[in-house]
Amino acid sequence: MLARMNEIVAMIEEMGRKARAASLKFASAPSEAKRSALRAMADAFDKASERLVAENAKDVAQAKKEGLAPAMVERLTLDAKRVAAMAKGVREVAALPDPVGEVLREWTRPNGLRIRKVRVPLGVVGIIYESRPNVTADAGSLCLMSGNAAILRGGREALRSNAALADLMEEAGRNAGLPDDCLQLVRTPDREAVRALARLDRYIACIVPRGGEGLIRAVVEGATVPVVKHYKGVCHVFVDRAADLAMARRIALNAKCQRPAVCNAMETLLVHRDAAAKFLPDVAKELFARGVELHADTRAKAFVRAGGTVRDALEEDWSTEYNALVLNVKVVDSLDEAIAHINRYGSAHSDSIVTADAAAAERFLKEVDSATVYHNASTRFTDGGEFGMGAEIGISTDRLHARGPMALEELTTYKYAILGNGQVRE
Amino acid sequence: MLARMNEIVAMIEEMGRKARAASLKFASAPSEAKRSALRAMADAFDKASERLVAENAKDVAQAKKEGLAPAMVERLTLDAKRVAAMAKGVREVAALPDPVGEVLREWTRPNGLRIRKVRVPLGVVGIIYESRPNVTADAGSLCLMSGNAAILRGGREALRSNAALADLMEEAGRNAGLPDDCLQLVRTPDREAVRALARLDRYIACIVPRGGEGLIRAVVEGATVPVVKHYKGVCHVFVDRAADLAMARRIALNAKCQRPAVCNAMETLLVHRDAAAKFLPDVAKELFARGVELHADTRAKAFVRAGGTVRDALEEDWSTEYNALVLNVKVVDSLDEAIAHINRYGSAHSDSIVTADAAAAERFLKEVDSATVYHNASTRFTDGGEFGMGAEIGISTDRLHARGPMALEELTTYKYAILGNGQVRE
Repeated sequence: MLARMNEIVAMIEEMGRKARAASLKFASAPSEAKRSALRAMADAFDKASERLVAENAKDVAQAKKEGLAPAMVERLTLDAKRVAAMAKGVREVAALPDPVGEVLREWTRPNGLRIRKVRVPLGVVGIIYESRPNVTADAGSLCLMSGNAAILRGGREALRSNAALADLMEEAGRNAGLPDDCLQLVRTPDREAVRALARLDRYIACIVPRGGEGLIRAVVEGATVPVVKHYKGVCHVFVDRAADLAMARRIALNAKCQRPAVCNAMETLLVHRDAAAKFLPDVAKELFARGVELHADTRAKAFVRAGGTVRDALEEDWSTEYNALVLNVKVVDSLDEAIAHINRYGSAHSDSIVTADAAAAERFLKEVDSATVYHNASTRFTDGGEFGMGAEIGISTDRLHARGPMALEELTTYKYAILGNGQVRE
Repeated sequence: MLARMNEIVAMIEEMGRKARAASLKFASAPSEAKRSALRAMADAFDKASERLVAENAKDVAQAKKEGLAPAMVERLTLDAKRVAAMAKGVREVAALPDPVGEVLREWTRPNGLRIRKVRVPLGVVGIIYESRPNVTADAGSLCLMSGNAAILRGGREALRSNAALADLMEEAGRNAGLPDDCLQLVRTPDREAVRALARLDRYIACIVPRGGEGLIRAVVEGATVPVVKHYKGVCHVFVDRAADLAMARRIALNAKCQRPAVCNAMETLLVHRDAAAKFLPDVAKELFARGVELHADTRAKAFVRAGGTVRDALEEDWSTEYNALVLNVKVVDSLDEAIAHINRYGSAHSDSIVTADAAAAERFLKEVDSATVYHNASTRFTDGGEFGMGAEIGISTDRLHARGPMALEELTTYKYAILGNGQVRE
């Protein structure tokens, strides 16, 4: 057991060392080299589509035998259409602007020193994810396009699928002249590998975990590598007293029901007391019609007519991410109370105010301390694609380095290049 | 013992809770309110100069009695001149541009959503430092000017000095209308307080430790709050074969000798073999004249004539920060070897190439993976003031969030404010 653990730690360490060496070479790779390598990877997916589906079928069969939840099996499954979508996604990443080398700022000091702040890759990025094989292609291509070496560690249920995808990516990368080891897959299912990766701060600049709160806490616990992440999305819509109620209804229904299982779906609806009587009975009816269960505070409950399940909201409900057709509802006395509620119970992910009052909107946008704050729009837009970033490697509710959707730019850092002509410090 | 520890943890937790509450109010404080509060603090230092010096004298007397090293006593000591310099420093911070509220980017999506990326304070910043009372004023004023609540924890030798400074800052802040608790000093000398602060990720956004490697490792160990830091500065000057040797000499002497105890001083001089015969004998003589001891590799040693102390460089020397008049010297065969040496043994802090060869300089600036890379200048310029940032809260060799000198901008993050007119996700 201990010998096996040491073996895994040594293997991960060796992967880290190789990735770091690769990243030093890869950091200054020309954009066109990265683009053509990614296009070659996409072509390889298309060409090997049947083989990928066959390998995946073995994973799916075993997962079913082991009783994996149907929703997880669905996410694990690849068919020809999904393989084609993955290839298309990689080609889209290959067409994005290359952030590396961008001069962020440049100035000259009185002593003549020219200071240039220039964008560079992070170095080695670790991606730890569950059993969605498409992440192998998505995350791998984003890391490579931003000049980073990537170490990918997918869920054990997808081991064969991921190995088949990584084989194709590695081969296409090698043929396109990328340095060896700039994309590596951890090919062992042991959990110890995750722990070992997260402690490899000598080599890995950053880890981006993708998955549920349990996975992310497991990565963070004991990590010495910085982890950019969100644990959960407890998102709010606040219907102000000055809200256009038809708009508020559309936004609330969309934020809760359009895709309830995702992190930017609404978990709590806050309604100003002056709007409650007009707003709540109708919206509750429509929520019931869509199968939503309500957890309501006393005042909100009074406005909800029969027609669906409603129970008293518990203290812990306010900070719960349901990822399902369940919604907290609360009546508040003021904008201040709404803001205080969100800053106390929310997850600093995505929160929206619906109001025609510009001053109220301005205060909400300033004072709600979340990565993304909306005025008159659904929280469901917090997403790299919807933001126009072309793709997304994750969403951060951390405050350092990156907040909100993360794509190519967020996989970079900067360095200062300073040009002198012999300056010394007096 | 355990009761005392629990008491400290509870006290620190309460400070964190208050700081977080203060930061939510303080985040949108107008620039002028912050500026006038800082100016009032500076005035208070000037007015209370005698009292500050008297309080400090008690710290100094005790430190001497306890046998603190003379260099540390020197750093601890305040006199009227130093108090005046502190006040001046705070006034300078008050005059810097306020980064908060800057719109970093703004764009409109095809569906009409307007996305605004706007600079906001980090929230609560923890500063953990040794026994230099001026850090209380410097770091405190930088945190406040950037809209952050600050929790300061200085070394126990400076407890009375720091308490006197913090009293003045708190009072001046309160009179100027800043929220309570936006500047707090940990007034207990217990080490447990540092550990408790570093685990308060519920409330604290970021910790910046200032001090030696020991202090920083103690902060990072077990921390759940992100720490932005550098452990040490192992900085290099590479004298290329195409170097102007007179310039190289000036830069090498400046980088080593102008202030050897600081992190951006040179620890290793790398010399291209084609320049070694002409460069090394003279520069070694001048280094000896300044009292520098050399740790040389075999080839470098052959070029060093008598006149000072020289011994064989050991493997561990290449990654040692001496903070003293000691210098490693090595002859390398090529630019590639110099770059590889720096990326292997350096601390990614500050590294310089001296060369008239533009292509060599370009490769060095690109491929040396450090926060600041220089062409034809001394490494001693890595400093917020020298970069034109007006001040500095620390220097980062981390890759996430901030690299190199950190000042007001580096104490901020951003949020996305999204303006819609009813958009829902299809």
